[in-house]
Amino acid sequence: MRAHPAGPRHGDEHDHVTHRPVSVAESLRTDNGVWSANVTRDEVSGALTIADHDVRELTEQFGTPLLVMDLDDLRERVQDYQAAFDDPELPTDIYYAGKAFLSVQFARWLADEGLRIDVCTGGELACALRADVPGADLLFHGNNKSPVEIAEAIDAGVGRIVLDSFEDIARVAFAAEQAGVVAPVLVRVTAGVEAHTHEFIATAHEDQKFGFSLAAGDAREAVARVLNLPSLELRGLHSHIGSQIFDASGFEVACARVIGLMAQLRDEFGHEFAELNLGGGLGIKYQPSDQPLSVSEIARDLREIVKRECSARGLPLPRLAFEPGRAIVGPTTCTLYTVGTIKQVATGDGPHRTYVSVDGGMSDNIRTALYDAEYTVTLASRSSDAELMRCRVVGKHCESGDIVVTDAWLPSDLAVDDVLAVAATGAYNRSMASNYNLVPRPPVIAVRPGEIVPLIRRETTDDLFACDLG
Amino acid sequence: MRAHPAGPRHGDEHDHVTHRPVSVAESLRTDNGVWSANVTRDEVSGALTIADHDVRELTEQFGTPLLVMDLDDLRERVQDYQAAFDDPELPTDIYYAGKAFLSVQFARWLADEGLRIDVCTGGELACALRADVPGADLLFHGNNKSPVEIAEAIDAGVGRIVLDSFEDIARVAFAAEQAGVVAPVLVRVTAGVEAHTHEFIATAHEDQKFGFSLAAGDAREAVARVLNLPSLELRGLHSHIGSQIFDASGFEVACARVIGLMAQLRDEFGHEFAELNLGGGLGIKYQPSDQPLSVSEIARDLREIVKRECSARGLPLPRLAFEPGRAIVGPTTCTLYTVGTIKQVATGDGPHRTYVSVDGGMSDNIRTALYDAEYTVTLASRSSDAELMRCRVVGKHCESGDIVVTDAWLPSDLAVDDVLAVAATGAYNRSMASNYNLVPRPPVIAVRPGEIVPLIRRETTDDLFACDLG
Repeated sequence: MRAHPAGPRHGDEHDHVTHRPVSVAESLRTDNGVWSANVTRDEVSGALTIADHDVRELTEQFGTPLLVMDLDDLRERVQDYQAAFDDPELPTDIYYAGKAFLSVQFARWLADEGLRIDVCTGGELACALRADVPGADLLFHGNNKSPVEIAEAIDAGVGRIVLDSFEDIARVAFAAEQAGVVAPVLVRVTAGVEAHTHEFIATAHEDQKFGFSLAAGDAREAVARVLNLPSLELRGLHSHIGSQIFDASGFEVACARVIGLMAQLRDEFGHEFAELNLGGGLGIKYQPSDQPLSVSEIARDLREIVKRECSARGLPLPRLAFEPGRAIVGPTTCTLYTVGTIKQVATGDGPHRTYVSVDGGMSDNIRTALYDAEYTVTLASRSSDAELMRCRVVGKHCESGDIVVTDAWLPSDLAVDDVLAVAATGAYNRSMASNYNLVPRPPVIAVRPGEIVPLIRRETTDDLFACDLG
Repeated sequence: MRAHPAGPRHGDEHDHVTHRPVSVAESLRTDNGVWSANVTRDEVSGALTIADHDVRELTEQFGTPLLVMDLDDLRERVQDYQAAFDDPELPTDIYYAGKAFLSVQFARWLADEGLRIDVCTGGELACALRADVPGADLLFHGNNKSPVEIAEAIDAGVGRIVLDSFEDIARVAFAAEQAGVVAPVLVRVTAGVEAHTHEFIATAHEDQKFGFSLAAGDAREAVARVLNLPSLELRGLHSHIGSQIFDASGFEVACARVIGLMAQLRDEFGHEFAELNLGGGLGIKYQPSDQPLSVSEIARDLREIVKRECSARGLPLPRLAFEPGRAIVGPTTCTLYTVGTIKQVATGDGPHRTYVSVDGGMSDNIRTALYDAEYTVTLASRSSDAELMRCRVVGKHCESGDIVVTDAWLPSDLAVDDVLAVAATGAYNRSMASNYNLVPRPPVIAVRPGEIVPLIRRETTDDLFACDLG
């Protein structure tokens, strides 16, 4: 079975029909909200350009597969997110969720833009520290932080530690005591809400590993314990409800429950919670037919919900916090692949399907196989006015499930050595990459007009054997 | 959607109920066919031993997560496989499918045991060559081999190249011609059979990326082209029908079709095919309730089928070949984890579920999330006579789908710092491992009585940033 109806799938639309472009012209468009802001098509050559860089020049220089991040789009997205939550009545901290994608330079950029960073392992912590992000701007998550990781986080002066289990409370309290500090913490509450696209499920209990159950009383018990531990400073509560969320409806139920709990605990313990962290989960467009509300629309709804719920319970407004990952980095990046083989396959149910094999696959994009994720792909190295053909873009791995784009329509004059671009691969693609079939992991470069900043280089054959003891 | 009804899932039983041990004693047993031959439990301490090595000593020395391969079990499994196909009438070559797991020393051992190796990328080829496996003992697969990989394979004198598309035929022929050699090749045929456990689906067409369709005439056309290319020597046909296959029923249909094609092509082109490679796919026990036939039973059935089909068509017996991966390495290895947190979660549908968090997860075992794979787990560092409790073993990643064992029953006195062992993790676990959440990938060690051979060391934090350009 798969663990969670919405959680692990990270936002893939099982219920709607895959978007089919009506014409080759539509399949070549880059203004459908799926591509980053500075992806366009050169009018003369017909080739895709990313921040004025011709993709043919980028692939010439860096090879394929290649992940290309649109740096000005990233900056704009960060600023949009910040602006959406800019409310003097309700100050909000934005923690970028490092699990979506991290590199040292990338973390440095985000910190320069004023984002804080949410890390959840010693490795992610190390990355943020290598980027000189101040410890106070970091938030440390994790359902099973090791004592070593906790000690490193406290040593780094991490600004928030999100407590996730009774063991975690004891370990963090002990580590803080040992270090002679008071650690600022949040208690993670599971409120029984699981949200995904425009839908959510509200139950009493959540059958998942994170947090303390509100309904079962574990959240109350966790707060009671934390308040009794002098090495912990309880800053607030944390609630995360899902991923690839397209509107605020799920948050409405979760906020009512969590803010209700804050009121109840204030009454019981006399404790005012200074902060409310509502986690991450805002969705992005993977296909033109995806219709998430804008960040500013969801932010407006969220702020109203929080104000209303606090007002109804006579609570002062808390400081808010959010943890966007995908919403920041997902749409900024696309992956460029070179076509290697093109095969017509009879499917028995009508038209042929054309299998287009590219030079990457499940090692650089596990999301299609893992979450049934759907992506948008376009011919990138040139234009075409040929009719569309029904395609499946597959990788080079020795496995039939090695699929990059399950349903795609590409020009029927597609040829070997054409370059394809797959949109919205910034989140979870490179971070979940593997060396399956001993395939080197691809590089990530960031571009803006006149500048290319390589973030992660391509692995070499020698890299594949770095840990092999021969 | 998921690509293939059986293919990508690699043998996970969606239809049968997860095996529930009837008692704690049963949950502690190691003689249920799921564990490798030399896994036992020390009568005094109650701890698991692997080839006489106490798991507590292994985890003390190497940390957790840790993959431990039972070397004598591996050798026995190789020899069983070889013996099962030892038929003077029908000589058979065994190619180990490197995708399941490879390291340099591991490849060397297999070659020493007389196995050949099936590789499908330049990286896997490089591994085999670093192990000094003779090129002639290698078979090169791949639906999208790059020209560079093909040139490397020909340069290495690879014994067989499996042709998978018309582009592939042209590329391999060209590369062989350039190198002034004649490359021995097989043509991969899709026969419309998809097999999985005790079931198979037989259709005319296969909606997947590999091979040439028999029904559509592509296989015939491929053979015709290869026969006209002087730089290619057509040794035979290749057919792969699925994974985690428990009996020969699917092979029966596929063999009838492929051997029928061999007869047809002999009649048309006068070409006798010297070899028939039937691919891989034999299944293993992940749970005590899995009931695959033994390799010797399936081999007996397969040899009968091939003899009958060839005889019926007046064909001389070909040389056979198989490509076992999982069947060789899967059961030899288990993963050791340390318990970090234990959480009771109300599920709303009856009893609580206990979430047991370990120090690894989807970065070292993506199969549970990817294929809904089911694993067997046991308490490894001690014995217990406490009652069983219903558990889910989860990892430390920041994702609710990060599950190692979906349904497990473990002793209710399970405690933090206990070591758990998950069985049959030799195939596809380490080879598909990622650095998700910047978690270092775990080491693999091989053990036999009195000896420990580390194959792959644990990644360090510095390793995580080896390609990060800062």
